[in-house]
Amino acid sequence: MSELRQDITTKEWVILAPERGKRPQQRPKKKPATIDSVPNWDSTCPFCPGNETETPDEVFRIPAPDKASDWAVRVVPNRFAALTPEGDTTRTEEGPFFRKMGGYGIHEVIIDSPAHNTPLALMPYEQVEKVLTAYQERYNAIKEDREIKHITIFKNVGWAAGTSLVHPHSQLVATPIMAPYYHRKFDVAHDYYADMGRCLYCDLIAWDLDKGDRRVVAETKEFIVVHPYASHVPYETWILPKMHCASFGMFPTTHFTELAQVLKDVVFCLYQGLDNPAYNLVIDSTTTYDEDDPYYHWHIRIIPRLTAIAGFEMGSGIYISTAMPEETAGYMRKIARSCPDDVCIAFNK
Amino acid sequence: MSELRQDITTKEWVILAPERGKRPQQRPKKKPATIDSVPNWDSTCPFCPGNETETPDEVFRIPAPDKASDWAVRVVPNRFAALTPEGDTTRTEEGPFFRKMGGYGIHEVIIDSPAHNTPLALMPYEQVEKVLTAYQERYNAIKEDREIKHITIFKNVGWAAGTSLVHPHSQLVATPIMAPYYHRKFDVAHDYYADMGRCLYCDLIAWDLDKGDRRVVAETKEFIVVHPYASHVPYETWILPKMHCASFGMFPTTHFTELAQVLKDVVFCLYQGLDNPAYNLVIDSTTTYDEDDPYYHWHIRIIPRLTAIAGFEMGSGIYISTAMPEETAGYMRKIARSCPDDVCIAFNK
Repeated sequence: MSELRQDITTKEWVILAPERGKRPQQRPKKKPATIDSVPNWDSTCPFCPGNETETPDEVFRIPAPDKASDWAVRVVPNRFAALTPEGDTTRTEEGPFFRKMGGYGIHEVIIDSPAHNTPLALMPYEQVEKVLTAYQERYNAIKEDREIKHITIFKNVGWAAGTSLVHPHSQLVATPIMAPYYHRKFDVAHDYYADMGRCLYCDLIAWDLDKGDRRVVAETKEFIVVHPYASHVPYETWILPKMHCASFGMFPTTHFTELAQVLKDVVFCLYQGLDNPAYNLVIDSTTTYDEDDPYYHWHIRIIPRLTAIAGFEMGSGIYISTAMPEETAGYMRKIARSCPDDVCIAFNK
Repeated sequence: MSELRQDITTKEWVILAPERGKRPQQRPKKKPATIDSVPNWDSTCPFCPGNETETPDEVFRIPAPDKASDWAVRVVPNRFAALTPEGDTTRTEEGPFFRKMGGYGIHEVIIDSPAHNTPLALMPYEQVEKVLTAYQERYNAIKEDREIKHITIFKNVGWAAGTSLVHPHSQLVATPIMAPYYHRKFDVAHDYYADMGRCLYCDLIAWDLDKGDRRVVAETKEFIVVHPYASHVPYETWILPKMHCASFGMFPTTHFTELAQVLKDVVFCLYQGLDNPAYNLVIDSTTTYDEDDPYYHWHIRIIPRLTAIAGFEMGSGIYISTAMPEETAGYMRKIARSCPDDVCIAFNK
């Protein structure tokens, strides 16, 4: 029997229908993706070391510890940018119905590592921390632009998640408008704060730790990892900092070592448990002009792309998930427990 | 240079970035999908004639004209239903944050044709009309249920669009809640009606016919086919009836012959011009309890799935499209003009 559940952070409903997971698929079976056949370096890859001139000029780099000329993480403008700083935010009308503005904004690529074939799931913890540091450095540099209203940092891993290049990379898009998803989330959080005088997410974290333990994948000193009550897709995973902080840009770097461990452990468990699934990762942060607001709470959403987003989701906006978060969280905990000693160090502490 | 455009029907912005269409893809090239290798009948297919016992009991059928025991269209409950009439719409709370209800609703499959390998794009016009008739019959039967608030009729064509079975079929999901996408669309249309005393869509149609002709794919006696100003994906296509009618259930069947021609011509042009692309089709109709409202206007959205929905779209809800509707509409018109005489009869009239 399926169930409708309301996502308290957006007020939207999702359908949880585990029985639908059993339907037959005429789709040709694919072998699980593997990175074994991918080389460590690819001469044609614009993100591989030695090909730095293939990208637009670097805007940020974290040098490699050993050799000053080498890099550990590079950030470059996206060569095929969706938005560019040349755009103009003046809104113009075409007749009574149509409103447009120039494609003003910033679209950057974070090259996660020099290694062509090492996804986040298999990266050393120190490298994941460098990636997070690069995210925050760029977030904080870009938020100074007063035309920018919101910054989305995200990753597409695997073809089904929309990546076009193999080399591990992340992206940052800074927009002169508020995205509808965040608009809704901020509204809901703001209403809760107006009613209760507290942050919705702080309260949710406390409740999940106290009573929602079946959906808690892991709790560490500073973070909680949960499969949300109204998961949109199977294995949707949220990483929330325990301390209240609305903006990813304001999050203390002193917590980055632990955050890197938690993030890597999550994606490692997905990699291990679901045969290297495609997934998207998104950092949900507040607006760039109200960073210390008391009602929002930045967090990371990881959205595995095990099933296609079909006509019903595209049409209605209602997601049908074929798994219960209470069960998937249990499976994640089981994978973590069976890990070798050098991975899942945050989860198994 | 990219552009941000606002969708007047939802007030959401999309990014149109044609330059992004040129980015290199390391993704292995697939041959365009073809139906040549698919047989006309498959003994293992639950939707093929002779296998009727493989599906739950039929709720509706359009008989074949020649032999009474044969069928032209069948409608059956979805065997792996996301929602079922056994559910209970009582809302229950789990603590202060979590609200759920039983998975009450209706989830049916419309088997479009007995032919295993004949997609909508290649179906005879008469068969398409039968499919539309089945949609409306089921819509009108199900709307009598007072627990149902909204009915979504949709099609998933191709793996990338989320289908799990090859045999041409459509689906109907009736929900006890309003979906967020429709909620937003109804709100916007209602506000426009409150301001102007007219239907937003009627006004949009008039404007597009007068001034938006570059985005008009076709105009027939009763319908207009457009690529919307703020298209979410390349080749997004809307079919709108010229007459005001909020509910697909109330649309006069006298227009179904023409609607079938228009619909088939749209999907044929996509099939022909884009090598049988995956796509979703959705019928956007008003709520089931306010069918003759003056502000909404039912229409069909066809959403080709040429590019993956990636992290930015999943995260923010902002779509990045790599094509301009003014150009794609022109390409659709060109394809229609080059068609043999027995297809695109509505477009080339």
